[in-house]
Amino acid sequence: MTKTLAVNAGSSSLKWQMYEMPEEKVIAKGLIERIGLNDSISTVTFGEIKDRIVLDIHDHKEAVNILLSDLKRLNIVSEISDITGIGHRIVAGGEDFKESTLVTPKVLDKIEKLSPYAPLHNPAEAVVMRVFEQVLPTATAVAVFDTAFHSTMPAKAYRYPMPNKYYENYAVRKYGAHGTSHMFVSREAAKLLGKPIEETKIITAHIGNGGSITAVEGGKSVDTSMGFTPLGGIMMGTRSGELDPSILPFIIDRDPELKDAQDAIDMLNKQSGLLGISGISSDMRDIIDTKDTDINAKLAFDMYVDRVKKYIGQYLAIMNGADALVFTAGVGENSVPFRESVLDGLDWLGIKVDPSKNFFGAEGDISLPDSRVKIFVIPTDEELMITRDVERLK
Amino acid sequence: MTKTLAVNAGSSSLKWQMYEMPEEKVIAKGLIERIGLNDSISTVTFGEIKDRIVLDIHDHKEAVNILLSDLKRLNIVSEISDITGIGHRIVAGGEDFKESTLVTPKVLDKIEKLSPYAPLHNPAEAVVMRVFEQVLPTATAVAVFDTAFHSTMPAKAYRYPMPNKYYENYAVRKYGAHGTSHMFVSREAAKLLGKPIEETKIITAHIGNGGSITAVEGGKSVDTSMGFTPLGGIMMGTRSGELDPSILPFIIDRDPELKDAQDAIDMLNKQSGLLGISGISSDMRDIIDTKDTDINAKLAFDMYVDRVKKYIGQYLAIMNGADALVFTAGVGENSVPFRESVLDGLDWLGIKVDPSKNFFGAEGDISLPDSRVKIFVIPTDEELMITRDVERLK
Repeated sequence: MTKTLAVNAGSSSLKWQMYEMPEEKVIAKGLIERIGLNDSISTVTFGEIKDRIVLDIHDHKEAVNILLSDLKRLNIVSEISDITGIGHRIVAGGEDFKESTLVTPKVLDKIEKLSPYAPLHNPAEAVVMRVFEQVLPTATAVAVFDTAFHSTMPAKAYRYPMPNKYYENYAVRKYGAHGTSHMFVSREAAKLLGKPIEETKIITAHIGNGGSITAVEGGKSVDTSMGFTPLGGIMMGTRSGELDPSILPFIIDRDPELKDAQDAIDMLNKQSGLLGISGISSDMRDIIDTKDTDINAKLAFDMYVDRVKKYIGQYLAIMNGADALVFTAGVGENSVPFRESVLDGLDWLGIKVDPSKNFFGAEGDISLPDSRVKIFVIPTDEELMITRDVERLK
Repeated sequence: MTKTLAVNAGSSSLKWQMYEMPEEKVIAKGLIERIGLNDSISTVTFGEIKDRIVLDIHDHKEAVNILLSDLKRLNIVSEISDITGIGHRIVAGGEDFKESTLVTPKVLDKIEKLSPYAPLHNPAEAVVMRVFEQVLPTATAVAVFDTAFHSTMPAKAYRYPMPNKYYENYAVRKYGAHGTSHMFVSREAAKLLGKPIEETKIITAHIGNGGSITAVEGGKSVDTSMGFTPLGGIMMGTRSGELDPSILPFIIDRDPELKDAQDAIDMLNKQSGLLGISGISSDMRDIIDTKDTDINAKLAFDMYVDRVKKYIGQYLAIMNGADALVFTAGVGENSVPFRESVLDGLDWLGIKVDPSKNFFGAEGDISLPDSRVKIFVIPTDEELMITRDVERLK
């Protein structure tokens, strides 16, 4: 029985989960928020204990130290060295990392060099990895890349129709995201189908505040909606998704708030999507609560649903069908009206939901017996996937 | 029996076709190229006559005068006033023009005001219209808009997931293009289906050097691939189509040839698409000729085909099926390997081509009897549609 920590460092946050392995049992989990801001918050859930402290945490190095002291203070571990494995979720693996890998100084350098591809994430993740290396030099440290699952995409899916120099010199291509989640739920879906994953075609819809949809053929990602960055693909909570790019110079010329393309991209990342259209919220729950009385919320909902439907249709076309369609992540797992609207009017394609199975809390198969494409709700578990990769590489 | 002229002014060209109405008989046609450059060329086909003159034509006003003198010189008309109707194809109709309209001074002003939405086309078109107004004040002049057919799209299709101010203040939305062609071939398809168009769902693929795909439900455009400008949608001869917009600041920061977003858009319009990936040509025929020996030509072809397939899937999803899929325009009408590759592996969706009917020169139904979606090849005829609109509004 050993203890493994799954760590997910965001730009101003540090999420973690502690497992007992090989039992795959979650012992404790926590979240440190507002790193670099005043009144940072560290919360820990450990059995009956719900611990919360507020203090100023200036950077990710301090955050790791708070996490380690919390673990001892709350008696989650008696010694830090009880932790024998650490898995780090890394946003951008570029073309270098096609699978999870043991953390070495060279790997760390490469992750830092990939920072231009995830400027808010990779630098913070590298800092966290370095601190853990110092504190726990004997633990097995593994980097798990959000992009790795998509490294199997063929060139026709990952290349953009631009002059080749942008790919060759600057590695501009589709990388995708949420790979760990798409991999996890597609494997679970194959189990539900009762088929070897090599014989399956599965469309996985990871829909949270961010969102991406993947075509998984024979267990491999063959296309995904997210692009060069997480701005690509479908409309999201605050992100636009793909656009006619000629909109950019047009609005930069006219909107005094935008001085250059980077400003426009910030607006498309932070003020667009559900929030931009509704003017109300980036949260699907708020949109659904107001859509019957607010015309902009209704439009935001309809646009969002339309774009998800379109990706389902696309991936049916490029895979020549599918055995299953999976909904996962915050919205995908929990929003009944969202699933209902996405699935409405897809019966010509052989996608038929059973309304009596599409309730809040539903898990597993929610399709009618004669649905050509099974419809599954599968809670994602990225931390477990990360932990399994640590175990596998030990 | 009257004579009607259909006029299509491009940024440096003027295409025309003369009809005898109501017989809808083409009497003569011509093309003036390289307007504004040295050695402009005016070609005319009139019965057995193939006329070609080379001279410097400095602007569109001069081009119209050359056209008028050609008409008399070659005896196509005895007097210019024999022309009783003129139809002008206009690229951008914005939100003002939802259908073809008689040209009035107010209409002309509006067309000029829409120039930011088609900076290479609308100004030239307005010049041409003004010259014809002076020379032929009594002829019925009609403006036919490339965007009008798409004015029936619902907001969920034409809005972009951006803050509302960009739509409200700057009219940033999807306008689409090739509307006259999509309308023409969808009507022809309904005839082939033997059904009232109100009861049909048709996907029209207008694939030329530019290209767009439209979902036509009940005879109305409900979605189209081209966007705010003709850069949106599928990959084209030299255009990228839609992208993750965050690519723009990334490449502007790195490529010394790009100083701002407008430079990037110029590159995406003129150096991308088939040309950018293949490094060989923007012409599908050249790509097909080289794809078996050149890896980049093969990739360009595969990417292009993939993107067309994806739109077919999308529109099946949002319309909940389709009665017919139509191929039209240069590539769509003439390229057997293109159609073959697009249609390959769509049988799960019920789209089945009959290889024995998919030959060069094929017209009409090329699908197998058990294809759920009929596949039609229908030559487009935008000039005829324009001429019919002149006749209708006389």
